[in-house]
Amino acid sequence: MSSVFRDPTDMQELPSPSDSGEMTVARTDTLLRAQTHAWREHGLRISFVPTMGALHEGHLALVRRAREVADRVVVSIFVNPAQFDDDRDLVAYPRNPQRDATLLSAVGCHLLFLPPAETLYPEGHCTWVGLDGGPSTGLEGEHRPSHFRGVATVVAKLFNLVQPDIAIFGEKDAQQLAVIRQMVRDLHFPVEILSHPTIREEDGLAHSSRNARLDTQERRAAAVIHRALTRAGELIEQGERSAETIRQAVRQALHGDRRVRIDYVDVVDADSYEPLERLRGRVVVPVAVRLGDTRLIDNLRVEIDSPEKGGS
Amino acid sequence: MSSVFRDPTDMQELPSPSDSGEMTVARTDTLLRAQTHAWREHGLRISFVPTMGALHEGHLALVRRAREVADRVVVSIFVNPAQFDDDRDLVAYPRNPQRDATLLSAVGCHLLFLPPAETLYPEGHCTWVGLDGGPSTGLEGEHRPSHFRGVATVVAKLFNLVQPDIAIFGEKDAQQLAVIRQMVRDLHFPVEILSHPTIREEDGLAHSSRNARLDTQERRAAAVIHRALTRAGELIEQGERSAETIRQAVRQALHGDRRVRIDYVDVVDADSYEPLERLRGRVVVPVAVRLGDTRLIDNLRVEIDSPEKGGS
Repeated sequence: MSSVFRDPTDMQELPSPSDSGEMTVARTDTLLRAQTHAWREHGLRISFVPTMGALHEGHLALVRRAREVADRVVVSIFVNPAQFDDDRDLVAYPRNPQRDATLLSAVGCHLLFLPPAETLYPEGHCTWVGLDGGPSTGLEGEHRPSHFRGVATVVAKLFNLVQPDIAIFGEKDAQQLAVIRQMVRDLHFPVEILSHPTIREEDGLAHSSRNARLDTQERRAAAVIHRALTRAGELIEQGERSAETIRQAVRQALHGDRRVRIDYVDVVDADSYEPLERLRGRVVVPVAVRLGDTRLIDNLRVEIDSPEKGGS
Repeated sequence: MSSVFRDPTDMQELPSPSDSGEMTVARTDTLLRAQTHAWREHGLRISFVPTMGALHEGHLALVRRAREVADRVVVSIFVNPAQFDDDRDLVAYPRNPQRDATLLSAVGCHLLFLPPAETLYPEGHCTWVGLDGGPSTGLEGEHRPSHFRGVATVVAKLFNLVQPDIAIFGEKDAQQLAVIRQMVRDLHFPVEILSHPTIREEDGLAHSSRNARLDTQERRAAAVIHRALTRAGELIEQGERSAETIRQAVRQALHGDRRVRIDYVDVVDADSYEPLERLRGRVVVPVAVRLGDTRLIDNLRVEIDSPEKGGS
C-alpha cells in the first residue's frame, strides 16, 4: 500500500517494544486497536496526546496531565503532511523518534503510536474534515490556507483509531484548540477535550519544536514575544478593555527587536476566534512572528470576569 | 439552542417509550448515549440503520438484517437538510414518524433515535465531512452538488453518537454506499459497513419513499426502470463486456416509456465509481430518471468473475 504523501521520516532506528520497558510501540493500526480494545474491555479509561514528535517540555506536560486523568496514556507521533502548506517546512520539521520514545517512556506513556504515512493517507484517500468558517477563519487559517483542514482530518482519523475518552491539547496552539473543540462539538465525537497551559523556557519563550531552528541571536530576540504578551496582560489587569489598545501595545513591544517581523497580532474570542472590539469573556491575544526563516506563534489567554464599567 | 436549519417535522404525536413495547424512543443524544453505553458495558454488539423515515419494505429488510448480525438494533430517523439541494424537495419529503415507530417496533428495533435538527446542526455548526473526488464525483454528485457532503457529515455525526459495531445501508443508493465506505476507510471509523440488496415491488420497481409521489400512470411507467436494468443483466450474462453497449441498451429500454426522462445511465466500478469502458470486477449500472416531478434512482450490481476473452 502506498500513500498520497511521501514519508521522509526514518523510523528504522526505533526501539522495539521490548526495549522500551512498559511502553508499547505500535506502528500498525492493528496493534493499536488490539491494545486499546483490551484496555476498554477491562474498563480502563484512555487519554490521548497527538503530537508531531520533536518532543519538548510542553508535550511532556501534556503526557503527565494525561496520566493524571486516565488509566492508560496513548501518544501518537505523526508529522502530518496535510497540515503543511509549504513542502520545505514539512521537510525541515525536526524528527527524532528515538529520543522521543525514550522521553515518553520516562514520563509513563503506555502506548506510542507511530503510524506510517500510508496508514493515515493510503492511496486513493479523498475524505476531508474541514470547518467552513467558525474558528478556522483568519489568522493561522489565513496565513496557512489548508492547515486546519489537515489538522481536523488527522485528528478525526486518530480519534477513530485510538478511541480515547479524553484528548489533551496545548494552549500554545490556541486556534487549533478552538478548531478541534468546534469539530468535536459539531461531529459529536465521544471524546472530552482538555487543554493545558503553555510551558515556557526561563526567559518566557514558549516551548516549540521550531525553537531549535533559531540561531543564537534569533533565540535571544525571541524573548520579546512573551514580554509583549506580558505587557498586554498588565494592561488588561489594569482594566484596559479596548482590543485596539491591546493590539497596539503588543505591536509596539514586538517592535522592540528589529529582527522580529509580525505576521499578526489580534484580540479574539477564545471559542469562536472572532476578533473583538472590547474584551469580554474568554479572550485570546494571539501573535505570530517571523525570526529569520522561522515562524513562531504564541498567545495570552485571559478570562475577563468583571463586567466592564461604561464603554460600548 | 436553535439550529442552522429549520425542522419542518412535527414529532409531537410520537408514542412515548412506554407505549412502544420494548422499543426505546430517544429524542435526545443524552438518552441515546446512556442506553448504548449500558449495552456496550454488557458486551452487547450494536447494529445501526440510519434512515430519513417514511419507512418501506426496503428499510425493514435492513432492520431485520441488523437484528441478525448484532444483539441490539438502533434505527435513526432524521430528514437531513444538508443533503437536499432543493428546499422544495426537503419540504415535500414524506414524514410519518408515528407509523414509522409502529413498523420499527414490530420488526424488533430496540432503540429509535429521533434527534431534532438543533441536536445535529446547532447554531454555529460549521464542520463538514466531504470527499474531494473519489466516488462522490459525477452522477448523483453532479446532479446534486452538496448532496454527498451532507450525507457524509450526518453519517459521521450519527456514527459518533450511536457508536455502532455495524451499520447497514441499502444497495439502492449505490453511490451513497460507495461514499460511506470511502469515508469509513479514510477516517478509520471503527464501524463495519454491510450492504443489503434492493427490495422491489411486484413489478420490479425498487422500494423508495419517493414512489408515493407517483400518480397512477407514472407508477405504471416506473416499472420500465427495472426492465431496463434486467435487460442489462441479460446482456452481461450473455458475455457482453462493452460498457457503451450496456449503456445504449439501458437507454433504449428506458425510452420504451415516453414519460421517463433520463438523468443518467452509466457503468461504473462499484467502489471508486469511476466510469468503465470494459466491464470487470464489481460493477454497478446506475440509472436516474424523472417521472413528472419525481426523481427515481436504481441500479444493477454485478460481479464479473470470468476473465474477459480478448477485448481491450
